[in-house]
Amino acid sequence: VILYDISMTIEPGMAVYKNKAEKNPRLIVTRDFTDSAVYETRLEMDLHTGTHIDMPRHILPAGDSSDHWTAESIFTRCAVLDFSDLESDRITALSLEQKTAELEGAVPLFGRERAVLLKTANSQRESFDFNFTFLEKSGAAYLAEKQTAGVGIDALGIERDQPGHETHRTLLEAGAWILEGLRLAKVPQGFYILALMPLKIAGVEALPARAVLLSPDAIKIS
Amino acid sequence: VILYDISMTIEPGMAVYKNKAEKNPRLIVTRDFTDSAVYETRLEMDLHTGTHIDMPRHILPAGDSSDHWTAESIFTRCAVLDFSDLESDRITALSLEQKTAELEGAVPLFGRERAVLLKTANSQRESFDFNFTFLEKSGAAYLAEKQTAGVGIDALGIERDQPGHETHRTLLEAGAWILEGLRLAKVPQGFYILALMPLKIAGVEALPARAVLLSPDAIKIS
Repeated sequence: VILYDISMTIEPGMAVYKNKAEKNPRLIVTRDFTDSAVYETRLEMDLHTGTHIDMPRHILPAGDSSDHWTAESIFTRCAVLDFSDLESDRITALSLEQKTAELEGAVPLFGRERAVLLKTANSQRESFDFNFTFLEKSGAAYLAEKQTAGVGIDALGIERDQPGHETHRTLLEAGAWILEGLRLAKVPQGFYILALMPLKIAGVEALPARAVLLSPDAIKIS
Repeated sequence: VILYDISMTIEPGMAVYKNKAEKNPRLIVTRDFTDSAVYETRLEMDLHTGTHIDMPRHILPAGDSSDHWTAESIFTRCAVLDFSDLESDRITALSLEQKTAELEGAVPLFGRERAVLLKTANSQRESFDFNFTFLEKSGAAYLAEKQTAGVGIDALGIERDQPGHETHRTLLEAGAWILEGLRLAKVPQGFYILALMPLKIAGVEALPARAVLLSPDAIKIS
């Protein structure tokens, strides 16, 4: 039933936002077999490392923290939209309109029970690209208006170079979750069930997560 | 389809093994709204914090690391065995034999496709108990002999006070995974599907995970 693991691998030297050294994860061995019977490691990493969910608190001072993310959101129907051949570096309302015209038919694309995952040229490189493809604010407004459950993207940020973080703001204010750091190179455009399970950390603005895609008939969900 | 979230909440001050201060997780705010447009946090924690899977490398110097844990292991049929009323502080082969006699019938309990989760009095307290109920080595041998896929327990360790870590060793050498730090207070004895999704961290001896129980007919798995 599991078709694709779309999570980034967490390790020292992995791509981190803007290649900032302080954002690199660290793995510190605290006990090993030279003087102990067990091997143990301590992890240090930003909550926005690798595949993670942004909570409203990340951008909105009065926004909800991770305490409001419940296990009800683990399984969501989703559409992977393939923008790998996009000529621009940003996904706009127009790009989304054209793409969804291709896909819409028997299966609805939008609504509170469905999410959208954006596949772009970002999935073709492992290193951080300062010019990564992002969801432009008009695209965010388009998806918010369609009442999407959430939006995922194969970049460490869902936007860049937009004053006021309007893409984040528009989606989070509309109650949609934001999932960053996906790996979609092998995933064909189409319909899936997203299984999204973040660590259960109290009171924070982002949650590192494992994300996999299941076949659309794998589980009985609405 | 999601019946129970059986994961521990990760936060400063949570129960950690033997209450060791250095095992406490830390959440360090690196940016906030006083001087930034975003809120960001860095996490420091042992990989054995809260709900986590032990890899063979934790105990066996030549054992596999997390690189060998694949997404294939996300969904596993499991039985929750309730030992809350056990008079002893350890689950032995005899305890398991008596308990499984109660349950065995139409649904098989054991085999490579099925896991066992041990519910004990541990689930009734939040703080670390130095005398926590554990799986005694004879119990581990019993489960290894039954070729279980994995064993979970509602303690931060699956064993204590056994020289050579024989419970870990017996299970890991038999190819069974070990899942520690479960919360099972509300879960009735019975059959479920365990959805177990750890962070994808390369080359380590343990993986922090989210774990939830689904109804046994939720997904078509073997």
